[in-house]
Amino acid sequence: MDRADVVVVGAGIMGVASAYHLVRNNPGKDVLLVDRYGGPGQGNTGRSNAMFRNTFSSSDNQTLADASISFYLHTQEDEGEDLGLQKLGYLWTMNEARLSASEPYLEAMKRNGIEFSRKEARELKDKLPGFVLDGNAGGQASLLGLPTVEGGIFGPKCGRLDPDKLVRYYAREFVRLGGKTAFNTEAKRLVVGAKDSIGIEGEPFVWQESEVSGVEVRGQVNGIVEADCVVVACGAWGNEILEPIGVDGHTKAKKRQLFSFHAKGEVDLEGLVHAKGFNELGLCPMVILPKSGVHFKPVSEETALWVACEDEVNRPYLDLPDHDLGVYQAEPSYYEKSVKPVLTGYFPSFEKARLKAQWAGLYSYNTVDFLPFAFRKENLVVVGGDSGSGIMKGDSLGRLADALYREEEEATLYGEVPYKVSKIGFEARDVEREEWVI
Amino acid sequence: MDRADVVVVGAGIMGVASAYHLVRNNPGKDVLLVDRYGGPGQGNTGRSNAMFRNTFSSSDNQTLADASISFYLHTQEDEGEDLGLQKLGYLWTMNEARLSASEPYLEAMKRNGIEFSRKEARELKDKLPGFVLDGNAGGQASLLGLPTVEGGIFGPKCGRLDPDKLVRYYAREFVRLGGKTAFNTEAKRLVVGAKDSIGIEGEPFVWQESEVSGVEVRGQVNGIVEADCVVVACGAWGNEILEPIGVDGHTKAKKRQLFSFHAKGEVDLEGLVHAKGFNELGLCPMVILPKSGVHFKPVSEETALWVACEDEVNRPYLDLPDHDLGVYQAEPSYYEKSVKPVLTGYFPSFEKARLKAQWAGLYSYNTVDFLPFAFRKENLVVVGGDSGSGIMKGDSLGRLADALYREEEEATLYGEVPYKVSKIGFEARDVEREEWVI
Repeated sequence: MDRADVVVVGAGIMGVASAYHLVRNNPGKDVLLVDRYGGPGQGNTGRSNAMFRNTFSSSDNQTLADASISFYLHTQEDEGEDLGLQKLGYLWTMNEARLSASEPYLEAMKRNGIEFSRKEARELKDKLPGFVLDGNAGGQASLLGLPTVEGGIFGPKCGRLDPDKLVRYYAREFVRLGGKTAFNTEAKRLVVGAKDSIGIEGEPFVWQESEVSGVEVRGQVNGIVEADCVVVACGAWGNEILEPIGVDGHTKAKKRQLFSFHAKGEVDLEGLVHAKGFNELGLCPMVILPKSGVHFKPVSEETALWVACEDEVNRPYLDLPDHDLGVYQAEPSYYEKSVKPVLTGYFPSFEKARLKAQWAGLYSYNTVDFLPFAFRKENLVVVGGDSGSGIMKGDSLGRLADALYREEEEATLYGEVPYKVSKIGFEARDVEREEWVI
Repeated sequence: MDRADVVVVGAGIMGVASAYHLVRNNPGKDVLLVDRYGGPGQGNTGRSNAMFRNTFSSSDNQTLADASISFYLHTQEDEGEDLGLQKLGYLWTMNEARLSASEPYLEAMKRNGIEFSRKEARELKDKLPGFVLDGNAGGQASLLGLPTVEGGIFGPKCGRLDPDKLVRYYAREFVRLGGKTAFNTEAKRLVVGAKDSIGIEGEPFVWQESEVSGVEVRGQVNGIVEADCVVVACGAWGNEILEPIGVDGHTKAKKRQLFSFHAKGEVDLEGLVHAKGFNELGLCPMVILPKSGVHFKPVSEETALWVACEDEVNRPYLDLPDHDLGVYQAEPSYYEKSVKPVLTGYFPSFEKARLKAQWAGLYSYNTVDFLPFAFRKENLVVVGGDSGSGIMKGDSLGRLADALYREEEEATLYGEVPYKVSKIGFEARDVEREEWVI
């Protein structure tokens, strides 16, 4: 295996979606997907909360997510492929000030045809067992300055899916269409050559035009795989492979933690999992509390609730791979001191909840505008910077990677939605900064 | 020394200019300037080519540089402070295609009152000893595809200065106005605390508002210096101090190399240093050749010519401080194979030029739009990302740092030029990407 037309580095959601759309739209081309792990999605995709929403302040985020979600829904509902997808809905709980401040986002959503509805505080209290609207009512909570819930915004085309099922679906279809995979194979570096080589050692020189000519891999496959195009889709590890050739992936890696709690037989918690009146499944939606983005989702097949929160300043950006070992470890004190006080302010039933599992994964942040990007530099294509919302935009980003490979100005997202590729690149980037971040 | 009103981290040009304007505009405030080296400008400022120009494609770059240059000219000419400033002019040599492509930049410069003139190829050949307009005329050069020089653009308010003299001027005035310095003192980390501390170990928690409360230093001064505001102005080392607190400085570090050649007594080279007809000094301007940004400047006091070029893909971004040791070393093969072929195509007299010195320094690149930035996040101010043109914009950036400290919406650049601070920040950044890069 010493040549391919396209090599895709990384078999997380961005990589498998790219590989699938590349092989689908370029019949006869050899597409090789490489990943350091033994199968797809075993890096940060598999560690993700794997929620999806089309509710964003930025219309580009709305479009990219909405089209991907439609594709996932179509795949599960029309094609009968089980993606573990549950349209639970997202429920943002807010005080009046925040509800008012959200008006411009809601207007942007309306213009773009994104569904949502408002909820009264009373309705939320009635439907969500154990919900205390005034988070400060409890004893310890008075120091926290928890806003009182005065209403909510509900997005119905939002929910959860199973990231393993999703990436395995893409990888299987990729192989079925003729794509090749090399797992347990790490991309060590991008090989750069001179476009018009004159065969002198040390090329490319500064006066030569240079381009990525392949990937050096190690593991199950070894050596240099030459390629006409290399697609880098390796998320948090992007810097590691891009910086040595002087390309900025424009991302920083940050640890995010998840805590899963038993709900079966627990007062209020089991009822919370099965809260009625939000979706056809009779399940609790994803609930976002009005402080620090603390949120939880029901995992009905385990009768569990998964809890997480939004980090801000004071959580480090990580230099990989130095932190490789500890980076997937959740910190119990983080839950106890940073998450739990907020969570139990609004849902005291979590006070004695039994921890089932805890782990961490990495977000690959675009810290400029918090939207993903896709760009081409000579024959290198980079997709990433999804800032923790890569799964919900993965299908669209895969289509953009393919459009970049084919040097098309416009990609066609699922549902025949046209999307100008340069909007989400860097040289002529044309997106509004995302303000509705969890 | 355990408290200051403001601590400025880094005594390169950005740091000393910030410190000076802070102390000048905030009488009664304790401003402390810390740097790991024994004096100002001993990092990458002192290793810089220290050229200045007001000729850019971006009107913001024009404004920031023009005001700084005016201040430096005023300081040397009106205040009698020797900054080693020579208004040599910049001469871009180009073929017709590039001259045409530059039209929009020239229009932008006209609108902004930036002086320039066009030069005929014939005039350039007459005035610059040994200049071969057809770079490919020589034997070896045919592979290089060197464009024929068909004209030039000359910027008169451009030139060189002495970076040591400039930073020592700022540092001296800073101390004279009451500023304090701590040299040989390294800022190890930014200390983050909770705004409304409740005195529990592990603060700040996620639900607390956090802010930088000081700097931990080691060296001549040791311990934590608490501060109301910390200004980070440490160029290529920005990531090292910002990433651990989850702030993105939006820069990457890249090595840039300089090669100095003896010109005294050398055929054509000595004449080149003293090329007449470009400036009042009777010296060669900064000459930029039409390939790979290869350029040289005269250093008349040494009768030397300093040569450098523009890097593109395939030169790595560096992770500091890992590369600390080798990073200031120039690579002789880089000159021989990447720079010399272009240089000698147009100026064959460099063929046998004797190398006098070679060294390298680091650019702190803003890879998004190649303009510097200045932003505030709570009580942290960051200035940087000057992408190799920090000295020529240093005074303006210092004024912006001070305006950010005082939470002013507008800074006043030298010459009573108003400048909206948010334009050069990140949240509401409003600049055009710089296209005229060397």
